[in-house]
Amino acid sequence: MNEHTVKAFDEDITRLRGLIAEMGGLAELSIQESLEAMINGDAKLAKDVAKRDKKIDALESEVDKLAVRIIALRAPMADDLREVIAALKIAGVVERIGDYSKNIAKRVSEVEERKHFEPLTLLPAMGELAAEMVHDVLMAYAARDAVLAREVIAADHKVDAFYNSIFRNVVSYMMENPATISSAAQLLFVARNIERIGDHATNVAEMVHYAATGSYPPDEDDG
Amino acid sequence: MNEHTVKAFDEDITRLRGLIAEMGGLAELSIQESLEAMINGDAKLAKDVAKRDKKIDALESEVDKLAVRIIALRAPMADDLREVIAALKIAGVVERIGDYSKNIAKRVSEVEERKHFEPLTLLPAMGELAAEMVHDVLMAYAARDAVLAREVIAADHKVDAFYNSIFRNVVSYMMENPATISSAAQLLFVARNIERIGDHATNVAEMVHYAATGSYPPDEDDG
Repeated sequence: MNEHTVKAFDEDITRLRGLIAEMGGLAELSIQESLEAMINGDAKLAKDVAKRDKKIDALESEVDKLAVRIIALRAPMADDLREVIAALKIAGVVERIGDYSKNIAKRVSEVEERKHFEPLTLLPAMGELAAEMVHDVLMAYAARDAVLAREVIAADHKVDAFYNSIFRNVVSYMMENPATISSAAQLLFVARNIERIGDHATNVAEMVHYAATGSYPPDEDDG
Repeated sequence: MNEHTVKAFDEDITRLRGLIAEMGGLAELSIQESLEAMINGDAKLAKDVAKRDKKIDALESEVDKLAVRIIALRAPMADDLREVIAALKIAGVVERIGDYSKNIAKRVSEVEERKHFEPLTLLPAMGELAAEMVHDVLMAYAARDAVLAREVIAADHKVDAFYNSIFRNVVSYMMENPATISSAAQLLFVARNIERIGDHATNVAEMVHYAATGSYPPDEDDG
């Protein structure tokens, strides 16, 4: 590449990274707001989350188009090409994180009686942890920070532990309150969605680690 | 491109398509076997599914590497570049379909008492439908068949209807048999995983439709 091409490529990559940062910010907000909507039974806020998901999807399309254009126009090689492919993949994962929040928001109307509904009180701390993972992994991406990426990977065990504890709690609650089983089942799905958000943040962290160091961190089980 | 380059590009694309067909065949088998393992409590078969998932993951890495190499060496433009990017994305979705089966297989040991456990009888027909969607969408991909792709998209409503019916059935069963709630909750997750497989097959169908016709079919809600 000549100097002009290098400058143009750098500008493109900066825009690509900016789009992904924007997607990440929206995805993080949707995690928090979808849980707030679930806990308070706030249908309007749930609708905001659903609307925001369309924006996240549109940003992913923009990333795709820009990435394809960069490859076609600049014909990047080696590390530069890997960077563009990584951006494509990370945008795909962030879009999925958005889907999980949208799915939580959709379930708001399926939970019927919120007063004294204990299982609800277990969700916010788990949601905060997952939102923090998403926040941190995008910081790690922006700063190409392998150390922070490994911290995100380590935090996933905490989200998994939360999930297991919530699962046991909700099942006990169901046994004692069979009339609430349908609503409580929705909370199992919500907890599961948050757990998946943690898994996806971990996936991004692995990609960031790879981009920063050239090697993947030790394997994680993400199914 | 000169004649040699065109031929080399076509060979690369054929290999890329072959890898995706192989991934799809394994993913389809895993849907069937994960449900068979779940229904019969077959821990060995569940292990086979988990092992096969590693093979699917490895094939996805191969697709990624080959796609990057094609872009770097052949510098494809326009339609050809879109084809390579589509292959990257489709491989990613098929890998996720594999993850859902692995997740079902993981839950085999969480279901405790299988005799007379009615909710189990509801799963095979739903699983068959989802496996058929995965099969058909890969046929549509191989043949660039937009009509078959639209049929896959239409079938997703049947999978969703199955899911809703299973959800209601399992919840009623839980109310009547509180001692089985923990096992029955696992089946809710299994049904949800199958429903997500249908969603992902639909996503691939949309990509196939786009690649074949240049436009996306009417929007589907996939969260």
